[in-house]
Amino acid sequence: MQVLIVFAHPEPRSFNGAMKDTAVETLTAAGHDVVVSDLYAMDFRAGTTRGDFTTVADAGYLKYQAEERHAVEHDGFAADVQAEMAKLEAADVLIFQYPIYWFAMPALLKGWVDRVFALGWAYGGGRWFDNGAFRGKRAMVAMTTGAGPAAFAPDGRNGDMEMLLWPVHNGIFRFCGFDVLPPFVAYGVARADDDARARILDDWRDHLRRLDALPLMQFNGLDDFDADGRLRPGVAPRGVLRADD
Amino acid sequence: MQVLIVFAHPEPRSFNGAMKDTAVETLTAAGHDVVVSDLYAMDFRAGTTRGDFTTVADAGYLKYQAEERHAVEHDGFAADVQAEMAKLEAADVLIFQYPIYWFAMPALLKGWVDRVFALGWAYGGGRWFDNGAFRGKRAMVAMTTGAGPAAFAPDGRNGDMEMLLWPVHNGIFRFCGFDVLPPFVAYGVARADDDARARILDDWRDHLRRLDALPLMQFNGLDDFDADGRLRPGVAPRGVLRADD
Repeated sequence: MQVLIVFAHPEPRSFNGAMKDTAVETLTAAGHDVVVSDLYAMDFRAGTTRGDFTTVADAGYLKYQAEERHAVEHDGFAADVQAEMAKLEAADVLIFQYPIYWFAMPALLKGWVDRVFALGWAYGGGRWFDNGAFRGKRAMVAMTTGAGPAAFAPDGRNGDMEMLLWPVHNGIFRFCGFDVLPPFVAYGVARADDDARARILDDWRDHLRRLDALPLMQFNGLDDFDADGRLRPGVAPRGVLRADD
Repeated sequence: MQVLIVFAHPEPRSFNGAMKDTAVETLTAAGHDVVVSDLYAMDFRAGTTRGDFTTVADAGYLKYQAEERHAVEHDGFAADVQAEMAKLEAADVLIFQYPIYWFAMPALLKGWVDRVFALGWAYGGGRWFDNGAFRGKRAMVAMTTGAGPAAFAPDGRNGDMEMLLWPVHNGIFRFCGFDVLPPFVAYGVARADDDARARILDDWRDHLRRLDALPLMQFNGLDDFDADGRLRPGVAPRGVLRADD
């Protein structure tokens, strides 16, 4: 199995770095090939600009998605974007390794998604969700938080973790057709001592070893929605969706 | 009144650009001072790196928040971060103008938050939420979407818009003490014709003219939560929070 880890922490010796190293060791020992995109080490650009393309569809008006579609047709992606696309193409499993910043992904990781998941390649032309371009691949979040798990309960100060991860799980992974593996969240890492950290890394190893046994997260499929994008009558909402009342 | 618009779209002539221009005109005509941070034009850096500081707390291990705290104490922020802090300090109202990318903010805008809202300055030492550093200031999202409003209903394919905006409203604005103004969301802009776009800009002007009359969004306050960060018994959940059941 090919695994791509997109790693978004500026300090290699951080706990996020330890989780990344643990994943590389554990997955390699299990016989998988692991590739790491270390976004800070690569000084990865985050902004969606004309610099992402060697081709130009319209020099007078930057409609980014139109430039993406044009670049797909004319082999016009900048080298750094193209390199990430090739890694993603080869990957069976995609792992995002990051610390939660402001209830969401660090900007560099968001920029990796904004730039690499191009229209006409990662989605478009009827390819999305169940029909997504990356059907057959799996994806997973591996994350650290400052606050403990209570703050991420449905009645927690930060809001339900499932809700906070919805834009990643459904908005990015499912949108592009990935099956979604349950996330591994290392809570309260900032205040954890060495023993607690070692225990988290043990749990992380177990999670990785059970990758093929982990039940996929369940989301409503395209057919569950009407033409406007709302659940059809009688369809049970999954994940964070709620019946409209 | 001082208004800071943080603008995150790569094309000045886009609909987001038109919304930004409309805001500048409308607010200026109403007697306010408006400052715009045009993140793409500024080529704003998104990653949280040592380049954000002129000072160094620990050269051997980058703990970003520790470097932030140290920089606050020693006037050690890089010029681009410091310039944005000065704008924010002077602002009474903060507006984020952006297109939704992957159910969330564009990476450049996320990077502006990751880098500018520094520990020890924007929060920390007991200053957060109701006690936040920016108490007395107001903040608002102005956003465009590709999909129509139905897809952002509680039973919509993309999930409830209130849920998607929670990380911005509660995780950034409220976290730092801002009062939160109701967002202005321009739905389905990609497919809107010129008349529809003109009508949206009219609504946007109205929204801006009523800025002082708009009811603030309501969130649970710090006292509503126990020491672990969960709602105390009997406290009604607000916004996207749910009683734990």
